[in-house]
Amino acid sequence: MSTGLSHDLRNLPSDEVEKVAVQRFTAESQETVEDIVVREFPLTIMLNGTELVTLLCSPANLKYLAIGFLFSEGLLKGRDDLKRVTVDERKGVVRVETKTDVMADSEAVFKRLITPGCGRGASFYSAADTGLEKIVRPLTVTGTEILELMKTFQHHSLLYRETHGVHSAALCNTRKILIFTEDIGRHNAIDKIFGECLDKGIPTDDGIILSSGRMSSEIVIKVARRKVPVLVSKSAPTNTAVKLADELGLTLIGFVRGTRMNVYTHAERVTVSRLELKS
Amino acid sequence: MSTGLSHDLRNLPSDEVEKVAVQRFTAESQETVEDIVVREFPLTIMLNGTELVTLLCSPANLKYLAIGFLFSEGLLKGRDDLKRVTVDERKGVVRVETKTDVMADSEAVFKRLITPGCGRGASFYSAADTGLEKIVRPLTVTGTEILELMKTFQHHSLLYRETHGVHSAALCNTRKILIFTEDIGRHNAIDKIFGECLDKGIPTDDGIILSSGRMSSEIVIKVARRKVPVLVSKSAPTNTAVKLADELGLTLIGFVRGTRMNVYTHAERVTVSRLELKS
Repeated sequence: MSTGLSHDLRNLPSDEVEKVAVQRFTAESQETVEDIVVREFPLTIMLNGTELVTLLCSPANLKYLAIGFLFSEGLLKGRDDLKRVTVDERKGVVRVETKTDVMADSEAVFKRLITPGCGRGASFYSAADTGLEKIVRPLTVTGTEILELMKTFQHHSLLYRETHGVHSAALCNTRKILIFTEDIGRHNAIDKIFGECLDKGIPTDDGIILSSGRMSSEIVIKVARRKVPVLVSKSAPTNTAVKLADELGLTLIGFVRGTRMNVYTHAERVTVSRLELKS
Repeated sequence: MSTGLSHDLRNLPSDEVEKVAVQRFTAESQETVEDIVVREFPLTIMLNGTELVTLLCSPANLKYLAIGFLFSEGLLKGRDDLKRVTVDERKGVVRVETKTDVMADSEAVFKRLITPGCGRGASFYSAADTGLEKIVRPLTVTGTEILELMKTFQHHSLLYRETHGVHSAALCNTRKILIFTEDIGRHNAIDKIFGECLDKGIPTDDGIILSSGRMSSEIVIKVARRKVPVLVSKSAPTNTAVKLADELGLTLIGFVRGTRMNVYTHAERVTVSRLELKS
């Protein structure tokens, strides 16, 4: 956690944090110390020349965030849709041009985008409404592998340890983390992963997504859209997340803490074998 | 935390949770147990007959959420603006009618509303942009009072303890909690407080807001709009939250844990006196 003591910023991404002076109160003392806080960056996404949205995010991997966001919102079907992506880091603008015009009805897009409450995206309440196909991938993963991946994941984020101000997400296979991202928004962290996958042509359909955040319907839809068969978090799911994951064929695992975890849906992908060997 | 064991639901708000069957893995065993998860509810706000937004929220205090949301978004100036508010809990719709027509340009409203990344609202980057006046209230609070309030606050939420799926917020004076709310969204929890204050004519300008969530620019603006002089969280602020709080005259306190806290801005409102007596 943020200690309130001087930090060694050399190991931190310098554009993602800022030093601030704080009054540190303890039971014994009050003193002025230097602390670091995470930066908040407004990124505007222009789609085919039209201003679509301004995301508050952490200022890293802006291109991936923009592509991932557009994909999650259904405005981009795949890599082949992209004509050009230009990033202006100074102005905080990513311009995305697609091969076909996808900005037909901007108000419809806006309406669909809005769902605050620490979330966004439309409110889908049954799998049929999402238009997504059921995930049928026969991936299996052992309980031990999930626990090991989460342990690695939770030790991965220097930015979190120093600021406690970001969420993280990762794409893994059953053995290791392939892509790790962090962002002040839990949605952004996952969009950055999928944006990078889309940009580099990395397949996700044998992957596992790890997240530090709570799992709402929107997160489940985001992950199911990329056909990822397993979603894991140290946090809790909502009832709708459980319902949608069940209907969409997604294995939803929550409360991964220490040597325990809850498998909410499609437990057929999780085997105990190595877990039993270890105990 | 969610134990995976049978829960006694009698003490929980039954419409806010749902029972689910989970596979509970531990190092020693795998078993099917009953767990409870928090409910996610889509609430549509109609403003003067026009569909404005669908919020994903916890299904309690829907009227307060709708009013608080409209106020936070600047679409409602005060209680006197309200003509009629009707809540249809079954359909998940709150209809708000105002005395003057505030839905002139719906697309502008939509654009302004959009900022995902676990947030919403426009991206304000200086206090001048917010159009808010600086808070000059000479409230003082001791370190001990903040610590005691946060201790009470953190033990207040049964829903959180049982599901780990909600954020909480509270309005307090220096001695006790006056209003306590919880919601799957950290923005919603705060909007519910301000909605109730607006509806009941409860003043907030000598108040303290407690929050379980991270503090971004949007949360600071929401609190400053109600002229609340002190915002406290167990979590971290972003750099923009610190900058805006400084400019807007808001005392921003974070990382309140055990007997420690960081006062990021306007520490002149916080005195150590009782803290010193206690130690």
